[in-house]
Amino acid sequence: MRKVDINCDMGESFGAYTIGSDEDILEFITSANIACGFHAGDPSTMRKTVQLALKKNVAIGAHPGFQDLAGFGRRNMDLTPQEIYDLVVYQIGSLAAFTASEGGRMHHVKPHGALYNMASVDRPISEAIAEAVYKVNPELILYGLSGSELVKAGERIGLKTANEVFADRTYQDDGTLTSRKNPQALITNHQSAADQVIQMVQDGTVISAAGNTVSLKADTICIHGDGTHALEFARYINARLSESGIRILSTLDVLT
Amino acid sequence: MRKVDINCDMGESFGAYTIGSDEDILEFITSANIACGFHAGDPSTMRKTVQLALKKNVAIGAHPGFQDLAGFGRRNMDLTPQEIYDLVVYQIGSLAAFTASEGGRMHHVKPHGALYNMASVDRPISEAIAEAVYKVNPELILYGLSGSELVKAGERIGLKTANEVFADRTYQDDGTLTSRKNPQALITNHQSAADQVIQMVQDGTVISAAGNTVSLKADTICIHGDGTHALEFARYINARLSESGIRILSTLDVLT
Amino acid sequence: MRKVDINCDMGESFGAYTIGSDEDILEFITSANIACGFHAGDPSTMRKTVQLALKKNVAIGAHPGFQDLAGFGRRNMDLTPQEIYDLVVYQIGSLAAFTASEGGRMHHVKPHGALYNMASVDRPISEAIAEAVYKVNPELILYGLSGSELVKAGERIGLKTANEVFADRTYQDDGTLTSRKNPQALITNHQSAADQVIQMVQDGTVISAAGNTVSLKADTICIHGDGTHALEFARYINARLSESGIRILSTLDVLT
Amino acid sequence: MRKVDINCDMGESFGAYTIGSDEDILEFITSANIACGFHAGDPSTMRKTVQLALKKNVAIGAHPGFQDLAGFGRRNMDLTPQEIYDLVVYQIGSLAAFTASEGGRMHHVKPHGALYNMASVDRPISEAIAEAVYKVNPELILYGLSGSELVKAGERIGLKTANEVFADRTYQDDGTLTSRKNPQALITNHQSAADQVIQMVQDGTVISAAGNTVSLKADTICIHGDGTHALEFARYINARLSESGIRILSTLDVLT
Repeated sequence: MRKVDINCDMGESFGAYTIGSDEDILEFITSANIACGFHAGDPSTMRKTVQLALKKNVAIGAHPGFQDLAGFGRRNMDLTPQEIYDLVVYQIGSLAAFTASEGGRMHHVKPHGALYNMASVDRPISEAIAEAVYKVNPELILYGLSGSELVKAGERIGLKTANEVFADRTYQDDGTLTSRKNPQALITNHQSAADQVIQMVQDGTVISAAGNTVSLKADTICIHGDGTHALEFARYINARLSESGIRILSTLDVLT
Repeated sequence: MRKVDINCDMGESFGAYTIGSDEDILEFITSANIACGFHAGDPSTMRKTVQLALKKNVAIGAHPGFQDLAGFGRRNMDLTPQEIYDLVVYQIGSLAAFTASEGGRMHHVKPHGALYNMASVDRPISEAIAEAVYKVNPELILYGLSGSELVKAGERIGLKTANEVFADRTYQDDGTLTSRKNPQALITNHQSAADQVIQMVQDGTVISAAGNTVSLKADTICIHGDGTHALEFARYINARLSESGIRILSTLDVLT
Repeated sequence: MRKVDINCDMGESFGAYTIGSDEDILEFITSANIACGFHAGDPSTMRKTVQLALKKNVAIGAHPGFQDLAGFGRRNMDLTPQEIYDLVVYQIGSLAAFTASEGGRMHHVKPHGALYNMASVDRPISEAIAEAVYKVNPELILYGLSGSELVKAGERIGLKTANEVFADRTYQDDGTLTSRKNPQALITNHQSAADQVIQMVQDGTVISAAGNTVSLKADTICIHGDGTHALEFARYINARLSESGIRILSTLDVLT
Repeated sequence: MRKVDINCDMGESFGAYTIGSDEDILEFITSANIACGFHAGDPSTMRKTVQLALKKNVAIGAHPGFQDLAGFGRRNMDLTPQEIYDLVVYQIGSLAAFTASEGGRMHHVKPHGALYNMASVDRPISEAIAEAVYKVNPELILYGLSGSELVKAGERIGLKTANEVFADRTYQDDGTLTSRKNPQALITNHQSAADQVIQMVQDGTVISAAGNTVSLKADTICIHGDGTHALEFARYINARLSESGIRILSTLDVLT
């Protein structure tokens, strides 16, 4: 029987600013990537989000990003691998403290935004991130774009890794995502997005934007927590996967 | 045989900005209070400072402060106990990750600056800090002003606590520090400062600014790491204590 | 004929975070207090908000606050008057540049949140703010709580000042606001709020929480831009004032 | 008679952190580029630096940078031209307020670090900066690398521009600076640096790293304010230029 994890970014509120409807979305996912105060999130939001995830029995992961709150961590920054190593260690630790103090344990790490994208294709950066995760806690699962440098770096150092796929993005023939600058980048139709995801999980393939069948590994599906239809989409994807006989489990159980 | 710990704030550099001569001072102290990126410090500085402390066999502690880099954490901020709890958990975690990734273990927590001062006299704040430490790791030792609310809160919740005394500050008849607004607040003469400290450790007393003998407990001595004479003073205090037959040990060994 | 200004905080969004429905509220107010990037707002938000205010012909003011984005500038910080002077100069300047680059001119300054509250009762702080405004541009109007230290400091240094009243807050016999800790602090009924405001403008009096008639000056009315009923309340207050024959004008025209 | 401006970055201290010996260096320069709180500097430092510059009769310029205090504005950040426009407007304004409140007037704008480097070669970024300067105050002089996109963008929009040359950097045959990754990038010998600068000002040429004579325009010379020999070098360059009969004047007087 096929199985897959559904992950979503969480805890992205900051002070008086609210983003996302975390509590509702947690019903439909199995991994929460919790912002750690650099690109989003703050200590109080982190605590509350950890408490919610524990209550809903959703696996907790750190979601480290660049220190760029104004840009929500979405703007590339030219840091050295050492600087990236350091900021990943720091952010994992901050979330680990909340997880420990609430009686939970951390499950994974998924880099955010520009850091995620840069790590997908840059070997020194991906190695810095993998090493940071490994040295803080070698039991943590590293999430990265399916087939990316980040996943490879995690495997090389000895981490469990999760190949991540996207429900609402189209793919190129080489298995990379279509650039957002391309009008074909997004799948806005819920049904098509769910169809793509089910094929990925069941067959390990995706139909590229050019119409070719491309192999890729799907351990975890990324869904987005903000936007007007986020909750509705989370519910729909979850239901469609279940109807297709796919079990939705947190990544540790997917991988074993 | 009497014994005491010497602690000093460390890792207060930030990016291109350097404060303190940490590596040299580490020779003469047994506890390093490492800034965690809120009032001072940054991830790279934290890693380097943890590496130095491990190399010099100095006990590592988190030094959480208010998120006020512009004010170096020295300006009171009116936060709720819950907000303070959260920022202490966060900062302990961030340092714990560097300690773990470098193969060490954390030894203590000492709040910084305005947070330290507020916690000395405010019961809800001191309880928030003590709870944060306890819930992240009940083995950590909580440092606070000797006899303060913070030490009492630590004891109540079940933490090991360290009563901290100051070499270069004068005391009032009630065992509190003379306010810095008072011209008598500081002891600038190294010999007098050392004499005061030795009396504190050996006799458990101090001569107050008014000339009276006051009881107080001295588990750890705070020295300052910045300023022109910091290194010289660290060396001198260390030597004078040793000459007096006092053993200088990290707090865990002082308390047991 | 009576006249009054209606002011509202604006431009409080930050990066990916949105607060307020500025464009809609601008229809019903005559003064926009624009956040300057310390407690809220960012350069892009400031530019857009200035453009909107100019388009809607609403007077533009700087809304300086403490550098505490995590606390939205609502937490007291223990700064020196000199530090406060400096952060007010800085923030006025940042908004002045957007106003100038968009072809407008700045009309007023209103401190935000904790800075506003502290300045209401603290003479050195209120003098620091008044001096900052005066030295950057003596033509700017200083907004402060009606009858407060801030208004007095503005008058002493030679600034035009606006006595600000609140529609949705109750007053004490000494003309101060009822503390928010008191359950009587807020007026949640729109009609009562409008009644209070009309009496303030027409008669220069308010009925205190204790039921007494208290004198106070009302040059400008503060309304809140966030919350579910903000827009509705703005429209209602504006309409009620107009129906009562009160002219709604920006403060410069109210004062002359 | 030849003339040239000498500029230096100033006001880069932040809170408790000190960088540079601004007061001493001001004796030997004619333009101060004052940090505006994003990559370095804070409101209090800005005020003090403006006061010093006015006292020493040194022309005041804004020195805007990326919002990256941890990286001192030296790390490339992938911002849109609109975001860059906005942060330049903001920072010019903040310094303009201190200049106005101290009775001075602003003279120039020079982007800092990574922003300067990116603007040297990127046309949309250089145009965003030039437009920001022009719209805030078209009288301001825009400083950029000699012959760069930034200088060209300034000229196109109608600003006065200053072609900047470096005393301690070598040049390529196309007039660009030798990359710092190249061991030949720096001129560490004071005498050689001064010789290069004098030739640039007198002849409008420089000998490239490859040994060829290259034309370039030298309106202003950049010297560095930090480092152990900064002060000594400032004094030396100033003296050598004077001895060569070159007049050292602020840029407005150089250009006219």
